Amino acid sequence: MQVIKKQSGAAFKLKKGQRLKVIDPEGEQVSDMVLFNAKDRREKLSSGKTLDFEESILISSGNFLWSNRSQKMMEILEDTNGRNDFLLAPCSPETFEVMYDYKGYHPSCFENLYTSLEKFKIEPDDIPTAFNIFMNVQFDEKGKISVDPPLSKAGDYVLFEAKMDLIVALTACSAEDSNNGSFKPIHYKILD
Amino acid sequence: MQVIKKQSGAAFKLKKGQRLKVIDPEGEQVSDMVLFNAKDRREKLSSGKTLDFEESILISSGNFLWSNRSQKMMEILEDTNGRNDFLLAPCSPETFEVMYDYKGYHPSCFENLYTSLEKFKIEPDDIPTAFNIFMNVQFDEKGKISVDPPLSKAGDYVLFEAKMDLIVALTACSAEDSNNGSFKPIHYKILD
Repeated sequence: MQVIKKQSGAAFKLKKGQRLKVIDPEGEQVSDMVLFNAKDRREKLSSGKTLDFEESILISSGNFLWSNRSQKMMEILEDTNGRNDFLLAPCSPETFEVMYDYKGYHPSCFENLYTSLEKFKIEPDDIPTAFNIFMNVQFDEKGKISVDPPLSKAGDYVLFEAKMDLIVALTACSAEDSNNGSFKPIHYKILD
Repeated sequence: MQVIKKQSGAAFKLKKGQRLKVIDPEGEQVSDMVLFNAKDRREKLSSGKTLDFEESILISSGNFLWSNRSQKMMEILEDTNGRNDFLLAPCSPETFEVMYDYKGYHPSCFENLYTSLEKFKIEPDDIPTAFNIFMNVQFDEKGKISVDPPLSKAGDYVLFEAKMDLIVALTACSAEDSNNGSFKPIHYKILD
């Protein structure tokens, strides 16, 4: 079991057929995930392709995560919580300025993703909209969005299977609204 | 007035402060739009940043379109129809295979965007999720998505103002579901 400490991130390779279990060990924590084709990093996770092909805003068990080249990157095998977000970009320094009116340095998923991905020569501009595991973004029929506390309980997990060789980056989210104001770790496990 | 013929595209520069009027001349037609910073093409339109900062899935008059670097790219000044989509990626050859079970060549917004953008050295992998003007994507509270005929009538338009120097690409959409099975032109006009 690997631990991503609060307000930090991790990046690693995952081979086709391997499974990835992402766990919320304490409950009410979010993990932003981005994916790249390990053999060609210009192929990456696409929210627009995924929502189109899966015909749903809400992505959970039985759905696939698709790339900008219209290929399947992952399948979601299990999801004990059942609520994830694929609308919103990772929180970035500007998120805290624009949305929280916060001045000064604030850790962010965006920074934690690109610093974790530096070793794979992936740059900040390459980061796509993330699949936000456990994130509870509510919306009404008029499209109004609100970021609510996660519904995940301690031990909830999502189990993914890689459909191609991948570079994966994960965070333990740094945004107060996403995790009900408490920063906690995320655990993950690679299963052959 | 510039004409984008049915199932084709166009790309051009738009200076900060200039306005762009995108018109549906016959009604029930969609135009996919992507944006790049004219001074650094790695900065581009981001659905995830826009939905986050505008706190809405539905983007219309008074909203801004934001970049992956959290900068304002455009403001929507007027929108006579009022329904646009920012969830779905441009239709691509695979859209017609996966969603329509169509075999053989089919024109697509994705192809029309990247061929129009070649002259600016922008490649297919650089195309982000487009802002789909006049596209009528309905969703329910469970997140289920359906692509319905556009609500736009002949002469409806959206008026944008550039907030930075931009490269803009637009299409006259090639997907049957997006335009109620009839392929029509899109008009646009640049206003100083």
